Amino acid sequence: MRTQVCIVGGGPSGLLVGQLLHRAGIDTIVLERRSRAHVLARIRAGVLEDGLCDLLRRAGVGDRMDREGFRHTGTVLAAAGREFRIDFQALTGRSVMVYGQTEVTHDLYAARDEAGGTTLHEIDDVAIEGVDTAAPAVTFRQNGAARRIACDFVAGCDGFHGVSRRTIPRAVRREYERVYPFGWLGVLSETPPVNDELIYANHERGFALCSMRHENLSRYYVQVPLDDSVAGWPDSRFWDELRARLPARIAEALVTGPSVEKSIAPLRSFIAEPMRWGRLFLAGDAAHIVPPTGAKGLNLAASDIHYLSEALIAHYAGDGDGLLDNYSDRALARVWKASRFSWSLTTLMHRFPDQGAFGQRMQEAELNWLEHSTAAQTALAENYVGLPY
Amino acid sequence: MRTQVCIVGGGPSGLLVGQLLHRAGIDTIVLERRSRAHVLARIRAGVLEDGLCDLLRRAGVGDRMDREGFRHTGTVLAAAGREFRIDFQALTGRSVMVYGQTEVTHDLYAARDEAGGTTLHEIDDVAIEGVDTAAPAVTFRQNGAARRIACDFVAGCDGFHGVSRRTIPRAVRREYERVYPFGWLGVLSETPPVNDELIYANHERGFALCSMRHENLSRYYVQVPLDDSVAGWPDSRFWDELRARLPARIAEALVTGPSVEKSIAPLRSFIAEPMRWGRLFLAGDAAHIVPPTGAKGLNLAASDIHYLSEALIAHYAGDGDGLLDNYSDRALARVWKASRFSWSLTTLMHRFPDQGAFGQRMQEAELNWLEHSTAAQTALAENYVGLPY
Repeated sequence: MRTQVCIVGGGPSGLLVGQLLHRAGIDTIVLERRSRAHVLARIRAGVLEDGLCDLLRRAGVGDRMDREGFRHTGTVLAAAGREFRIDFQALTGRSVMVYGQTEVTHDLYAARDEAGGTTLHEIDDVAIEGVDTAAPAVTFRQNGAARRIACDFVAGCDGFHGVSRRTIPRAVRREYERVYPFGWLGVLSETPPVNDELIYANHERGFALCSMRHENLSRYYVQVPLDDSVAGWPDSRFWDELRARLPARIAEALVTGPSVEKSIAPLRSFIAEPMRWGRLFLAGDAAHIVPPTGAKGLNLAASDIHYLSEALIAHYAGDGDGLLDNYSDRALARVWKASRFSWSLTTLMHRFPDQGAFGQRMQEAELNWLEHSTAAQTALAENYVGLPY
Repeated sequence: MRTQVCIVGGGPSGLLVGQLLHRAGIDTIVLERRSRAHVLARIRAGVLEDGLCDLLRRAGVGDRMDREGFRHTGTVLAAAGREFRIDFQALTGRSVMVYGQTEVTHDLYAARDEAGGTTLHEIDDVAIEGVDTAAPAVTFRQNGAARRIACDFVAGCDGFHGVSRRTIPRAVRREYERVYPFGWLGVLSETPPVNDELIYANHERGFALCSMRHENLSRYYVQVPLDDSVAGWPDSRFWDELRARLPARIAEALVTGPSVEKSIAPLRSFIAEPMRWGRLFLAGDAAHIVPPTGAKGLNLAASDIHYLSEALIAHYAGDGDGLLDNYSDRALARVWKASRFSWSLTTLMHRFPDQGAFGQRMQEAELNWLEHSTAAQTALAENYVGLPY
């Protein structure tokens, strides 16, 4: 088999690269280790920056998002029993779209089906070869048979645990990491959201987040120790803990119901440099992980994909390889900024085991300052709605 | 002896309270454990916010500052070999005054002399009594003799190690503290400053600060481990280390010379609540310590003194005790905000033993964002020039 760009990873990043390239007349094959059903069952974040929304529209997959998504013009922060709103629209002239990542992935698969793009699922033993030569290839096993795809370029969109990043030799790679000493316990419930915007709550007992997917599907989170298990968190305990961390007005308004999904996710900041090695280009979680606070994960993948698709389209249009050569630097400049924001919002909102009473009061003082400073709110808002590409 | 307000501590805080009360016709006695020469020999910071400048003018001691001080309309931040300027004037319409704390203290002593105010130096065994009754008093020993001053109120301006704060019972006091794992090695030299504004430098080797007192008196600092001693830092080593932490352009312009003072100071954040107990009112370092980054120490004492003098003047003018009753809350609201800023700027600019490569890159990303975001620069500038009283 042969294609122009072999895309390793069939999550939203890989599919979006594929769709943008398809519309430019560039041939791709997407390889995904898991089944399509498995990919579509993953619960992820759902706050999209304008940059990502525009990219989805350019890829021809923005219609349902524009119809069914919810535009959020602000968010609520809470601490020490108080709450206040950050008005993105007033402060930056911009806003965000609430639309589940699962829905984005669904729309991308539908578009790929319609375009007749090749996607190979449930494959194994993926290996990326010869990206430091003019003739790269991706090898793998499908139903036990060894297969090989020759290509011009490889897009590594296979996430943190994928093979793409590890294809870059150890001597070339620089990796930066912080593992946070806590996780997020998330519950999905078919109940109306407690608020029509997200609520981020700092509390002595730990962080809490009230989020949503639509009018009757809520997503709530509480910070938990890393060694907690879902079994230790029956629904009643979860709702009690969530209420305890929210300002009274919000806690009283909370509508609870049986959880339809419940899971614990660790929090990590991770950045690998460079994002390009020869003819291999990393995008999204393959190159960087952010903690979920501020919902930057998919949005950061989107800016990678913007830079990468632009560079590949320029190459095939005969406009030279300047953008390919600059890809890693351009993508990383934004990656570091968004990683800083995610780290900073995580650090501001969570209870750290070693922070002590002084640390808790510093967080409350920062939130109090944020409540009263237009400059501080603008600085947060411009990151939340997304820095320019 | 009897006075209306007994002021414990003859540093700039105590003297400024005394001067403001004197001009309102309120009688004070200032008690100072050390000699006047000792107090005047202390080298401290020298960046004054507008609020403090106005207070000095209201106290009648602003003339020399207005004549000899230097107005700074911005400051320079440096990191990763780059440098950029924060323009306070353009961003906030305000600026700061560079005028040594030692000069402020000198001017305050001159004014107290002229006013004929009583100041008792080199006293011992100070104790504050009966501040929870209608008849407080301060007792002490002078030249071996036991003495006692009866008063209406006690102003506790005797710094972190003074007796005032410890007079508030342990059960009433709440204390919040962070001790930083490094110190500042400071050198005073009779050389022209390397730049006409301050330069704050983040560097992998540690923080550095280029400051000044006047055209031919420079003050430079480098971050050092807490267990370093001045003996281990001959001038040549200090200048080499300072140069290594500055961007090349600045390092090359540095004019060095023999140090005329050299000392290592630890860095600490500390806040005690409440700041009032009965008829005892804490102000300045007696209630709170900030790390020197951002020069908030004396400026924070100034807002305490503003609130306290206003409250005492209202009391003696027969305008009631509402301001006295609110003193602690009003003062602390600003203390927490300025403490947050000092902590945050310290955290951004210093090398921490446990920060690792990820932490260093987060600092560089924050400084890079700061370089390019007007909102972020405004948020820093509004704190640097001083939040409103």
